[in-house]
Amino acid sequence: MNKQITKTSGDIEVFSLEKLKKSLERAGVDNITAENIAKDVADETDVATTVDVHEKTYKKLKEKYRPVAARYNLKRALKALGPSGYPFEQFFARLLNARGYKTSTNRTIRGRCVSHEIDVMAYKDNRHFIFECKFHNNLGYKSDVQTVLYMKARFDDIKERWAEVHEGKGHHLHKLWIITNTQFTKQARTYAKCNDIELMSWRYPKGRSLAELIDQTGLHPITAITRLNRRQKDYLINQGVVLCQEALQKPEALKKAGVHGHKLKQVLSEADAIVHLKNT
Amino acid sequence: MNKQITKTSGDIEVFSLEKLKKSLERAGVDNITAENIAKDVADETDVATTVDVHEKTYKKLKEKYRPVAARYNLKRALKALGPSGYPFEQFFARLLNARGYKTSTNRTIRGRCVSHEIDVMAYKDNRHFIFECKFHNNLGYKSDVQTVLYMKARFDDIKERWAEVHEGKGHHLHKLWIITNTQFTKQARTYAKCNDIELMSWRYPKGRSLAELIDQTGLHPITAITRLNRRQKDYLINQGVVLCQEALQKPEALKKAGVHGHKLKQVLSEADAIVHLKNT
Repeated sequence: MNKQITKTSGDIEVFSLEKLKKSLERAGVDNITAENIAKDVADETDVATTVDVHEKTYKKLKEKYRPVAARYNLKRALKALGPSGYPFEQFFARLLNARGYKTSTNRTIRGRCVSHEIDVMAYKDNRHFIFECKFHNNLGYKSDVQTVLYMKARFDDIKERWAEVHEGKGHHLHKLWIITNTQFTKQARTYAKCNDIELMSWRYPKGRSLAELIDQTGLHPITAITRLNRRQKDYLINQGVVLCQEALQKPEALKKAGVHGHKLKQVLSEADAIVHLKNT
Repeated sequence: MNKQITKTSGDIEVFSLEKLKKSLERAGVDNITAENIAKDVADETDVATTVDVHEKTYKKLKEKYRPVAARYNLKRALKALGPSGYPFEQFFARLLNARGYKTSTNRTIRGRCVSHEIDVMAYKDNRHFIFECKFHNNLGYKSDVQTVLYMKARFDDIKERWAEVHEGKGHHLHKLWIITNTQFTKQARTYAKCNDIELMSWRYPKGRSLAELIDQTGLHPITAITRLNRRQKDYLINQGVVLCQEALQKPEALKKAGVHGHKLKQVLSEADAIVHLKNT
């Protein structure tokens, strides 16, 4: 199969068996199974977009390796935290907690000139961080330089007042981070680098991207559980249950979401398998 | 008439005869006529919004005082430069020219980190200015602090490189201006003032607002001419004819827009009357 497929960005690329195989291995599939599944998908006739490739692969995985399917589907599971950006902020704060940061969400911070609403404030070893979470429902969307410029000016305004009020007490406002579930434009990355602003997107930067952070912490979003329907997921998110791990700790929340009996057992078992995938 | 009317912002206010009278006087109507027209409008039964008030008044003015009607209708005429923002930038550059500034539009300027697209650059006495024009089709919309923050970061980035390249040659990057045909939020005004950024909106700041600048220069937009239809206005704007004054100087452009014979005479006479209103 040497066919061309359309990416979510609208660009065209040649279908790569190797790339699909690698993404399956990343999700925890062994070498031989990954090759077999990738070949199966390559042989399908009606595959025209990366979304098609993903869906065919996901379906094949679900049939045989459900927890791996959840992990393979992670980018879509994150998207399923939407349509509003708030659950993504909550989810990201949990990732920071797992890394030893104290966090607070939806804070209003006074700057020198005006006040600013901050998605996530994080704190560790006397160092304070501002995190702006840019959640996009369209996975092909790229956060642009305008967002980074805007956040730079906010950070400057906050930093000037912070220096007066907190710096003397040993609390240092250290850095601005901007996180997105999609991508940043090249200009956004250039400007951020030039101004010591940290960016994190789905696959950027290599080694400490959002995908890798989730993998390292093993904190998968509740939306990764394939056996929950949309209504159940929405209920859980509204109750502040945004992680698979939290579902394991609060089975009563699952019951209130309408998951009972045999189904409850299945869901808990899937959540458990997803959580433990991190060590594979 | 003590009725309540809805503003474009959605807020409710009590209809004020005095306010309407003043706006008529501002447009060039004498005291007694202004009072009569305002009372006529007040007596109309189907007036529920500020838009209704405006339209009724405009209609009455058109019947008897056409050039004054054009001036009274100025805010709407500016809006009619849309839907894209480019003609408003062109129009604003003309206002700056009339004030003795050399201007260029749609420039790309390199900053320290990235390049930026600037709506209008202006230059006078070795001082350079950056103008960002925020055109809104919805007259109830307020330009918010986010725009001002974003432009502040752009200006900082440009200024840092400018200092290296031009400052030595006596060219000083003096100030950032943000112009809108509608309003700014209170937070936007506070932040701008705090950072020495100049804002100009339809009625802000008092004494040198956009409305006053147009009045002082006598440069009215081509869209103010009541006898031109939408298609004709669009054609003229596309040809770079954005002022009533320019229509007077280029009657051949009017002909190409399909305005001939008696109609051409009427349009030229109206344009002439609008241009000379500035001295009333």
